[in-house]
Amino acid sequence: MKGLQYDRKLQLRHDLPLPVRHPEEALIKVLMAGICQTDIEITKGYMNFQGIPGHEFVGVVEAADSGSLIGKRVVGEINCTCRVCDNCTAGRYKHCTKRSVLGIAGRHGAFAQYLTLPERNLHLVPDTIPDEEAVFVEPLAACFRILEQAPVVKDCKTLVLGDGRMGLLCSQVLKTAQANVTVMGKHEKKLSLLKGLGINTRITGEVMREVFDMVVDCTGSPDGLATALSCTRPQGIVFLKSTVAAPRSIDFNQVVINEIQIRGSRCGPFAPAIQALQKKEVVVAPLISKIFPLDQAVEAFKAAAQKINIKILLQM
Amino acid sequence: MKGLQYDRKLQLRHDLPLPVRHPEEALIKVLMAGICQTDIEITKGYMNFQGIPGHEFVGVVEAADSGSLIGKRVVGEINCTCRVCDNCTAGRYKHCTKRSVLGIAGRHGAFAQYLTLPERNLHLVPDTIPDEEAVFVEPLAACFRILEQAPVVKDCKTLVLGDGRMGLLCSQVLKTAQANVTVMGKHEKKLSLLKGLGINTRITGEVMREVFDMVVDCTGSPDGLATALSCTRPQGIVFLKSTVAAPRSIDFNQVVINEIQIRGSRCGPFAPAIQALQKKEVVVAPLISKIFPLDQAVEAFKAAAQKINIKILLQM
Repeated sequence: MKGLQYDRKLQLRHDLPLPVRHPEEALIKVLMAGICQTDIEITKGYMNFQGIPGHEFVGVVEAADSGSLIGKRVVGEINCTCRVCDNCTAGRYKHCTKRSVLGIAGRHGAFAQYLTLPERNLHLVPDTIPDEEAVFVEPLAACFRILEQAPVVKDCKTLVLGDGRMGLLCSQVLKTAQANVTVMGKHEKKLSLLKGLGINTRITGEVMREVFDMVVDCTGSPDGLATALSCTRPQGIVFLKSTVAAPRSIDFNQVVINEIQIRGSRCGPFAPAIQALQKKEVVVAPLISKIFPLDQAVEAFKAAAQKINIKILLQM
Repeated sequence: MKGLQYDRKLQLRHDLPLPVRHPEEALIKVLMAGICQTDIEITKGYMNFQGIPGHEFVGVVEAADSGSLIGKRVVGEINCTCRVCDNCTAGRYKHCTKRSVLGIAGRHGAFAQYLTLPERNLHLVPDTIPDEEAVFVEPLAACFRILEQAPVVKDCKTLVLGDGRMGLLCSQVLKTAQANVTVMGKHEKKLSLLKGLGINTRITGEVMREVFDMVVDCTGSPDGLATALSCTRPQGIVFLKSTVAAPRSIDFNQVVINEIQIRGSRCGPFAPAIQALQKKEVVVAPLISKIFPLDQAVEAFKAAAQKINIKILLQM
């Protein structure tokens, strides 16, 4: 099959073997996939991943143990779990000690014509959600993870740092839960997308005199956490949504003295993400900068790394 | 009056003015006081504090607006608050923007014959608690703060890092709430105090193959947090109880990927601390290494800085 392979370099291949479907797995024909910051980091060595990257996708089930799935349009959770390790038995499935992660660790991903995933990872996509919106379910679910970790955010004065892909989605998700959201970013054009949605915006570098109950670091920058801490009120909470290559040096005395909470936050629940798209509570279409055919996947990666672009999609 | 003054150097003085009692404050004759790591840090420049240090004390009220307080033996909360700033009106009193803190910031402390504190900061000490135990109420309260921040710790697999003063108290407090507690420290002698109390112990440097639900960093070391993170299970929690002078460089990717929670934790509630001493649920007497008279306060500070000692007290 055709697909994008990363093996110290990124290469379009026409000779990749079709993935083997194991029991309880589905073989999925990929329709469309999204390029995420993690994919870009992978091409810089993150996770030492080699293989087909890609974990944001929508596709159609071609083969599965459950006949009812065949022909259905689906999105899929990316963590493939053993169900027997300590984390799985404690219900922390996505932290499975033996997990593989679609296109990130130990499992080929979505930037190809076909992929396999366990059937239990799949979620049906309602007909009203077009492919180019359905590919946003996975990153949107990661944003909804914050609402699992901080269930009550109504009227919570919230600052989202970063106007990249993650910042633009997180801020909208927090808005659905009635948080009072401000986004700080570098790009007037990206921020302008949010203004019409009732989200306050600030340009990075503006002097911040206020403090926030909650700050979500979506900068992907080693400086994001220090900025977040400086804007968080005593006993407030900082969410870390992005992994960064460089370790960050932080003065933790302010964390102790101000009793701040720092929480890592990763993958999240698919159901509310699908629902938010269906109910149009979250707007994703304006975030799509360009859709490339799979044949131009290498060029698509270059475009995704450019700050001027927001979301780059691949059509298979 | 007689007292210990820090003004770039630590000096016993006999000519200090008696503190002025403002409305709603009590004048307290100090009976006994404890030297804490924060006091030692202050003599290294922490908080840029100048004046009389000391914030762990027991004393007798000599003058107060409320006549019923006079003659009573008391301990006192150390944060003196304005009750009108944003933090106070939100109920976060100890984070009052305009606070003074006994012997730490903007207010003379307990290493002297007299101190003043707002009456609302005072708690009566039951007769069954001797002076040398009552001075532990303040640091014990700081340990009970963890139980406010993580209310359910029953059977929680908990690692306390550090067998210093804070580690020995925190581990006991967590044990009162039925946590499954292990303390890792450097000193066999200090750890042996805990073994008899049903607390597991480990020597620092032992290879740790297990992971913990909760890790409390009481090391006071810049390396404490990195060690804590390496021992925390996915979605587990790390409490930071000690401020350290040097910033720590941490790889935050594991915080994000494992969704770990890092929480700063400072002063806590006095009532459960007093009750724990009264019910003898917490053992503090064996922690007292030596009681010095106020006249030998400078020597007492030197003793408190020696790792062989646990708690050094001053008798006024």
